[in-house]
Amino acid sequence: MIEKEQIGDWFKGLQADICRSLEGADGVGAFVSDEWERPGGGGGISRVLTNGRVIEKGGVNFSAVWGKAPVPVLKSLHLDPNSDLSFYATGVSIVIHPNNPFVPIIHMNVRYFEMTDGSWWFGGGIDLTPHYVVEDDARFFHQQLKSVCDRHDAGFYTAFKKWADDYFYIRHRKETRGIGGIFFDYLKGTDGFTKDSRFAFVKDVGLAFAPTYVNLMKKNADVPFNDQNKAWQAIRRGRYVEFNLVWDRGTKFGLDTDGRTESILMSLPPIASWLYMHQPEPGSQEERTISYLKQNVNWIENNSN
Amino acid sequence: MIEKEQIGDWFKGLQADICRSLEGADGVGAFVSDEWERPGGGGGISRVLTNGRVIEKGGVNFSAVWGKAPVPVLKSLHLDPNSDLSFYATGVSIVIHPNNPFVPIIHMNVRYFEMTDGSWWFGGGIDLTPHYVVEDDARFFHQQLKSVCDRHDAGFYTAFKKWADDYFYIRHRKETRGIGGIFFDYLKGTDGFTKDSRFAFVKDVGLAFAPTYVNLMKKNADVPFNDQNKAWQAIRRGRYVEFNLVWDRGTKFGLDTDGRTESILMSLPPIASWLYMHQPEPGSQEERTISYLKQNVNWIENNSN
Repeated sequence: MIEKEQIGDWFKGLQADICRSLEGADGVGAFVSDEWERPGGGGGISRVLTNGRVIEKGGVNFSAVWGKAPVPVLKSLHLDPNSDLSFYATGVSIVIHPNNPFVPIIHMNVRYFEMTDGSWWFGGGIDLTPHYVVEDDARFFHQQLKSVCDRHDAGFYTAFKKWADDYFYIRHRKETRGIGGIFFDYLKGTDGFTKDSRFAFVKDVGLAFAPTYVNLMKKNADVPFNDQNKAWQAIRRGRYVEFNLVWDRGTKFGLDTDGRTESILMSLPPIASWLYMHQPEPGSQEERTISYLKQNVNWIENNSN
Repeated sequence: MIEKEQIGDWFKGLQADICRSLEGADGVGAFVSDEWERPGGGGGISRVLTNGRVIEKGGVNFSAVWGKAPVPVLKSLHLDPNSDLSFYATGVSIVIHPNNPFVPIIHMNVRYFEMTDGSWWFGGGIDLTPHYVVEDDARFFHQQLKSVCDRHDAGFYTAFKKWADDYFYIRHRKETRGIGGIFFDYLKGTDGFTKDSRFAFVKDVGLAFAPTYVNLMKKNADVPFNDQNKAWQAIRRGRYVEFNLVWDRGTKFGLDTDGRTESILMSLPPIASWLYMHQPEPGSQEERTISYLKQNVNWIENNSN
């Protein structure tokens, strides 16, 4: 059976591969790299690309941390806060904010967690936040995710697509963060899956990220845009900030437990704006985008669900 | 003894007076007004000024709401969530984001809450968030607050200044939101105070807002600034967003309890930015500002504390 360090090493390699692919597709920008250590054990590598040709600000984080399980971790798992359990957690986390408003924001995360009591699980997902919903791109994106899921279990796409719809929901705006994608957590050795077969799925999710997003970058990076499109992008980025700071459990947990703030908040956009009571023009592309920001939109034709 | 409706009416008048003062000092901008109703009882008036001469975005909210106490309210007060208590809550809440980075952001809040079990209390405060700390202005600001406090109790300024330092703290950044001010909550009929004498203090806090901020507007609105100063302002506004969305209890409570989102998030700046690992130049004004963003800075000379 695969060991935790092998999973961490694979994630570290994934980070490097993804950065290489994104640099290639950007053509101009280069990732800068910060290695950091966690006082209690482990550390990570934060890689950020700013002011590229396609990418305005993109962060690709890797971390592998371990040690005595902190009290907030134990509490969040409903375990005795006084227990002496140790943990190991590793993952890759990505958010890309592109220059061109017609290129979507994307988020990807793959992660693995285990404890010295023998428990372990995987989590992760990929979701897309277009400033302007382009229906073909949305279908392409969901089809890519469905293909990955279908290779592992016929029920994954439907279940994990719903999980993304539920999770990436900005409750106080009554709208989804974007067009969703897949989200999953606590994937354990249940339902006939083993650590190896769970890892195989998570690896495929990680490997699907670069080709999927590079396709969307190439397709849209040279679409003409104007100041009004940039202003709308800044408003949508503001909603992204609202989701991440108000509702995202990972961000909240990181900030609550004294995580590395600059790595956690790499997900925030270079610029965001808030206008009071902003309403898109009736019949505009902006209004059409809003109409798609809801749960349970079926992007896959002939999807049996 | 003063009735709750009289307090609400006084707050409504305060909102109107403050808007008039701010419009006068701005010289160009005018507040637009939105009246809204709360389905369970009561409502409010949200007033917003955008793209003025001095004020880039400023919100002045009034609300007076009542009805059966919602479960989250009861829980937050450690009361039986099944109880049939009704509540009345009224207040004025202000955040002003100026154009010129040398004019500080200001926040003011005065509020009153009572329940049908006979309990009541006042809360509120004023705090200042300079993009660039100007020592004379910081001293002036704190002296104004101390004068208001001293008219009511010799211990108020020290106690409420500390409360502001503790409250307006961005834990994940290990810095205060600004140079603090005063903050107080749960001011009840204790320590010899009555509802009338508590209200007299809260009124004086409300009345101190306009002259104090108008002074800072007039003094600094024409100070020359450049693109670098604007970029720094956007970064500091980003920290303001972080505090409000991650740590501010009022914002969180409003969003959790289905408050009017556009009124709650009026506090967010027109534009904010996030740069990875931004560090001000050694010896710069920006670095000096950061050096003041800590708790327990004594801005009042000869302050006996």
